[in-house]
Amino acid sequence: MKTPRNSEQLMPSLVQLDRSQDTPLYQQIYSELRRAILNQQLESGTKLPSTRELASLYDVSRNTIKSAFSQLITEGYLESFVGAGTFVSHQLPDDLSFAFVKPSPQFSETERHLSQRGQSLIWLGKLARAQNIYRDTNHIFVIGVPELEVFPFELWTKLSTKMQRKLSANHFGYHQDPLGYRPLREAIARYVRTSRAVRCEADQILIVSGSQQGFFTAAQALVNPNDSVWVEEPGYSGSKGVMMYLGHKIVPVPVDDEGIQVEQGIQLQADARMAIVTPSHQYPLGMTMSLPRRLQLLKWASQHESWILEDDYDSEFRYSGPPLASLQGLDHQGRVIYMGTFSKVLFPALRLSYLILPPDLVDAFVGVYLPTGNNVPLLSQAVLAEFIQEGHFSRHIRRMRKLYHQRRNHLLDALKKHLGEMIEIGPNDGGMHLNIWLPENVRVQDVTKHLEKYNAQNVALSLNYLDQHHRDGLLLGFSSATESQIETNVKELAQAIETATSA
Amino acid sequence: MKTPRNSEQLMPSLVQLDRSQDTPLYQQIYSELRRAILNQQLESGTKLPSTRELASLYDVSRNTIKSAFSQLITEGYLESFVGAGTFVSHQLPDDLSFAFVKPSPQFSETERHLSQRGQSLIWLGKLARAQNIYRDTNHIFVIGVPELEVFPFELWTKLSTKMQRKLSANHFGYHQDPLGYRPLREAIARYVRTSRAVRCEADQILIVSGSQQGFFTAAQALVNPNDSVWVEEPGYSGSKGVMMYLGHKIVPVPVDDEGIQVEQGIQLQADARMAIVTPSHQYPLGMTMSLPRRLQLLKWASQHESWILEDDYDSEFRYSGPPLASLQGLDHQGRVIYMGTFSKVLFPALRLSYLILPPDLVDAFVGVYLPTGNNVPLLSQAVLAEFIQEGHFSRHIRRMRKLYHQRRNHLLDALKKHLGEMIEIGPNDGGMHLNIWLPENVRVQDVTKHLEKYNAQNVALSLNYLDQHHRDGLLLGFSSATESQIETNVKELAQAIETATSA
Repeated sequence: MKTPRNSEQLMPSLVQLDRSQDTPLYQQIYSELRRAILNQQLESGTKLPSTRELASLYDVSRNTIKSAFSQLITEGYLESFVGAGTFVSHQLPDDLSFAFVKPSPQFSETERHLSQRGQSLIWLGKLARAQNIYRDTNHIFVIGVPELEVFPFELWTKLSTKMQRKLSANHFGYHQDPLGYRPLREAIARYVRTSRAVRCEADQILIVSGSQQGFFTAAQALVNPNDSVWVEEPGYSGSKGVMMYLGHKIVPVPVDDEGIQVEQGIQLQADARMAIVTPSHQYPLGMTMSLPRRLQLLKWASQHESWILEDDYDSEFRYSGPPLASLQGLDHQGRVIYMGTFSKVLFPALRLSYLILPPDLVDAFVGVYLPTGNNVPLLSQAVLAEFIQEGHFSRHIRRMRKLYHQRRNHLLDALKKHLGEMIEIGPNDGGMHLNIWLPENVRVQDVTKHLEKYNAQNVALSLNYLDQHHRDGLLLGFSSATESQIETNVKELAQAIETATSA
Repeated sequence: MKTPRNSEQLMPSLVQLDRSQDTPLYQQIYSELRRAILNQQLESGTKLPSTRELASLYDVSRNTIKSAFSQLITEGYLESFVGAGTFVSHQLPDDLSFAFVKPSPQFSETERHLSQRGQSLIWLGKLARAQNIYRDTNHIFVIGVPELEVFPFELWTKLSTKMQRKLSANHFGYHQDPLGYRPLREAIARYVRTSRAVRCEADQILIVSGSQQGFFTAAQALVNPNDSVWVEEPGYSGSKGVMMYLGHKIVPVPVDDEGIQVEQGIQLQADARMAIVTPSHQYPLGMTMSLPRRLQLLKWASQHESWILEDDYDSEFRYSGPPLASLQGLDHQGRVIYMGTFSKVLFPALRLSYLILPPDLVDAFVGVYLPTGNNVPLLSQAVLAEFIQEGHFSRHIRRMRKLYHQRRNHLLDALKKHLGEMIEIGPNDGGMHLNIWLPENVRVQDVTKHLEKYNAQNVALSLNYLDQHHRDGLLLGFSSATESQIETNVKELAQAIETATSA
């Protein structure tokens, strides 16, 4: 143990107080002394002046010094001996200075020792953060985004005030229903039974925070890594992303105008463990899965003990006749997991979707979901439940269906007017977008290049294919654009296509 | 193809309309006919009466019949030929009846073909749903649950109204900042810099929905399956649960009164990829990690390129002196991931925690987090940001610190009064619970057995050990119980311990 050195000469220079800061003085003194000890300006064993001396030296109250000291003592930087006074700890390890090594200028991720998954997904993080820059820039034909201008946020706010009062405080604690807020599950059950011919009770419903988490949970519960999963070709990239993330083998199964071609799937990979399909409104091409295909698919699933995830993302919006019956309603073998979402009918930031499970799968799904954090805030669930029960939900759907119907008609007219015979238009009796096929001699890159200022890359249909696609097309979202915007955008598009043709 | 049979005789019996229902008539007709086709009361090829005939037969408008027909046609149950009329589809597959097989009475999970993970976690789902039954029953010494009665929910509601107005509609769309709402991240950065001596900028902060998801994300980004992770022994079961879920090898490293025993960890598994620690307030025993241990731990991490997850779950509540400096603040090698949560200082149902990352790890963490669904609703984030910026947050912390301090004192007095020398009391200068050691001759099961009506099983300290523990103890939460409840509970406890002693 070194002989205690005194520190009077040293102390004044060590502590610079800034009385303009919010940081309390005792904390400033604490951190300055801490720093001084860490970089060994104050060596182990050094005796500190008394609290009285320091109080007058720094012109603060003695209590200020005492609080600083007591914290430094608790953290082991100082020790005090009755009678003898306060010292820089003797038991400071020799490698104390280690903690003060300057950080290496900038680590490169590859030098760092991440998990394979972490390493392999750096690109996604970069991409997401880069795209975030364009968040508020001008887009064109955005797909699947509801018209938020007409959403009744005022009403929503009133309801959230009401529900916050109504829910007793203990509802805001940890213990929550692992399946989700029961009144919401009951409201959803009533809704899907009547409007979607889904057969279910509230206890088959698991509330999840967004469809990504729905795909994630179902795959975790039902499919082993390296197992195969059928996806529609072309199909929704979000679900494919999750399957890749989880290390499943993705089998793209071509669709035709009756939906997924089950025989082809069987030829490609009969023993796939799950098929992810969009029977009511194929994404992105928009056709409905025919009854024979539905029955084929159910038969395959039952024969191979495989699973079907029915992604029913926007069937609320159908412009000829009522919503179609679900595939789940045809299933009597408990092979179909039905997923619905409120991102499209209400607003995406709500991040609330639901899985409807065969009764005997509920425990496995809850078990898989819980460790990832069962994370839809209670209040959002309660407000939504009230929104549905008070009838606002069906009113809102009707209203949006009407609005989108008009916008679709307007888009169709504009396309006829400005592009006429040049393009072919895909099925469009439902949904929030439609797709068009480009003339054989037009390359989609040439078209999007001319729409650069809209960062229009993601309107290319090709992005939804995993294998070779034979014909270029574009996806044109119409749900969140006004009629005049649609008019303008179609003119721009026509311009771009003509330039691309002559290219 | 069968010869079309006529169906007049049949039709009346097929459709029973219930005009009292909400379900529109066309939908009732649609589903009755659909059912009749599925169970082959109406065979393939059968000709249906004209819409006029059916309209009068069922006493509804012709349009009602037409809508029902058009839907059945879209779904492939019916086909209509101009002039000839409407028929049950000829192309109904022969195995149509298959779809109507009655479900097997009740599937047992084990017969079903789940993923290994799904199979292995059924118990957790069962457990969670079982516990849910006790949600509203009477508990005793509940751990880590804030006193919600005094949370300013009124104010919270006002702020959420305000922020809902303030946020423009497009904020409620899909595109959100992958790290979380920026103003919230800035508020958190300011808070942890001053109050926790954490060094960070807003762009190092990732908002996650609860600490479980924080553990999950960090482990996914940094640790491979089968890699080892140090956890404190005893330690928090939540983090251990996530590591098990992800298939990591868990290495329980004993703690002493200076915190985790780093040398022991090095002897047990020097090349562990991550250490999960609670330096400010060890869970569950409540001591503070000493400076030498902190430096040892940092040195180990740096030498083995391993990671440290600093779980700072409740350091806001310290009753002697200000909150302690974080381990992260000592780290100059970018090896520490700091996690804070608002579940304890505000309310659990908010489900909002945050990770503070070394700058070069941000992309990997975002990449790993996104596919699981970035799922803290924007509004919760915005309200919290405002709550902090307007100063309510620090006010609330001060208020709760005072309240919990009183309750802790009251618990200590009650323990002295009713149990005196029988028990030994662990560190208690912070947090929302304390632990007591039982007399050698008392078995914890005997004590909890006498507290059955409170389902007090989870007060046993032993639940937090993975290996053998040498001495029985109890965790006594005091944060959410009034002083009179504390008094009563301690009496009950004393009673139980005495009975157990004489047993």
